[in-house]
Amino acid sequence: MQLLDGRITAEEIRKELAEAVQERKRNGKKIPHLAAILVGNDGGSLTYVGAKVKACDQIGFESTLIRYDDSVPEDILLAKVRALNEDKSIDGFIVQLPLPAHIDEMKITQAIDPKKDVDGFHPVNLGNMVLNLPGFLPATPAGILELLKRNHIETEGKNCVIIGRSNIVGTPLSIMLGRNTNPGNCTVTLAHSRTQNLQEICQTADILIAAIGQPDFVTADMVKEGAVIIDVGTTRVDDSSRARGWRLKGDVDFDNVAPKCSYITPVPGGVGPMTIASLMINTLKAMELKGK
Amino acid sequence: MQLLDGRITAEEIRKELAEAVQERKRNGKKIPHLAAILVGNDGGSLTYVGAKVKACDQIGFESTLIRYDDSVPEDILLAKVRALNEDKSIDGFIVQLPLPAHIDEMKITQAIDPKKDVDGFHPVNLGNMVLNLPGFLPATPAGILELLKRNHIETEGKNCVIIGRSNIVGTPLSIMLGRNTNPGNCTVTLAHSRTQNLQEICQTADILIAAIGQPDFVTADMVKEGAVIIDVGTTRVDDSSRARGWRLKGDVDFDNVAPKCSYITPVPGGVGPMTIASLMINTLKAMELKGK
Repeated sequence: MQLLDGRITAEEIRKELAEAVQERKRNGKKIPHLAAILVGNDGGSLTYVGAKVKACDQIGFESTLIRYDDSVPEDILLAKVRALNEDKSIDGFIVQLPLPAHIDEMKITQAIDPKKDVDGFHPVNLGNMVLNLPGFLPATPAGILELLKRNHIETEGKNCVIIGRSNIVGTPLSIMLGRNTNPGNCTVTLAHSRTQNLQEICQTADILIAAIGQPDFVTADMVKEGAVIIDVGTTRVDDSSRARGWRLKGDVDFDNVAPKCSYITPVPGGVGPMTIASLMINTLKAMELKGK
Repeated sequence: MQLLDGRITAEEIRKELAEAVQERKRNGKKIPHLAAILVGNDGGSLTYVGAKVKACDQIGFESTLIRYDDSVPEDILLAKVRALNEDKSIDGFIVQLPLPAHIDEMKITQAIDPKKDVDGFHPVNLGNMVLNLPGFLPATPAGILELLKRNHIETEGKNCVIIGRSNIVGTPLSIMLGRNTNPGNCTVTLAHSRTQNLQEICQTADILIAAIGQPDFVTADMVKEGAVIIDVGTTRVDDSSRARGWRLKGDVDFDNVAPKCSYITPVPGGVGPMTIASLMINTLKAMELKGK
């Protein structure tokens, strides 16, 4: 069993991006500038946004963090999105999800200029993805493909089972891994809450990807000997042994699954850092797509 | 074995649409108007476009057929697309594919106003489909879902295998059948040219859909007893017994597969008429989405 260490791969990517920034500086070109909108004080969201700002610092991107209280009205948030769409100094921006219940996430996502939508959540970017046209690939699925590629894991002709059909991970990932690209060319099965014979289906997977947010959902009896396991789950569970009182748990029962597989991502330190690396790649791409 | 007769179901839909047109007339509302651009003299394309115009006549929609020679330059075609985008009398239009090799199909598809894209090929409509947002569903996949629905075929929790990952059938259909909708909620596997154990995969299918354009590709040994078979293929094969010299063949070896399954679509008369019915549904929807 080999660990698919997202931290190491993400570090590799950050170094390449830092070099690209230096190159841009030498050529008198604009430095990429990412903005992030954060609403409220959710612990997970604070951590993610913090990690994104930190990654910008390490690479040499400019970054701006815009924070709102939990009670911010939807129209104020929409106005901010529109202002960022127009702001020439900002190359790409994200609105950290989830948003409070009184705000329509889909409305916010659709208000973002697709050319600045570095999270790749806008319908235009998803449609371009389906058609394999230029655009922003959703950050987590793109990070997973990058992780497979940089660790030389063959995907062509492999059976891939994805558990979970969310708009931001499972569904786009199913399309990206099934396309005629490299990584890609998998035979993908997308499983979800209505799937009836999940264990049997998972046992056919050469590559098994769990993205449902249920700790320890994937058990050893679901996994084929030698499979590649990608764990997208990051649920906070109580842990009194830690000062902060919790730790992150993936969707995979790591201790029992790991001995059976060829590769496995840890949680934390697997897909999470790759999502952030993807976002950084997309931010640089935002400038390149504009020809800047 | 029961035949899934697309002609009968499409006729049902045409009657409903004809009633909707009468209702619109009574209320002094605009009559839906579909335009179709046809380039060249390909026999298949002529047949399809002819059938679309005929369906408009039967329902009471207005229709306009615009024809170009095979040698039409891309910019002339693009200019026509833009003119149709602006033309208030036209509610929806299609450009019949395939186009001659010197014309970039993707460029033409992307030039169509998504609000008039009744074939549902534009990236915006595909992205909306992924997110389950309002928009036009691609005509053939939507026709297949309608056929399943109107023939009371349960899809929830079923294993569905789709062979073929084209942009206009296999890929969007895989998403539509996997979503949390009715019909939908299938566990979908999308198979293609790189799939390695196709026979074994197909044997797991409760619903097997072939969309590759290879006559008799799906043989009886690939089909589970009692499966539902949807055949999207329509290839012209030589047939000297017919005056015209050819007949349409599906992707499924009908004679040998039919005895094994619960339902099967014939070719012709299965998915083809449903594609046209879908296009008609989308044309009416084009007006409703505009609030007309």
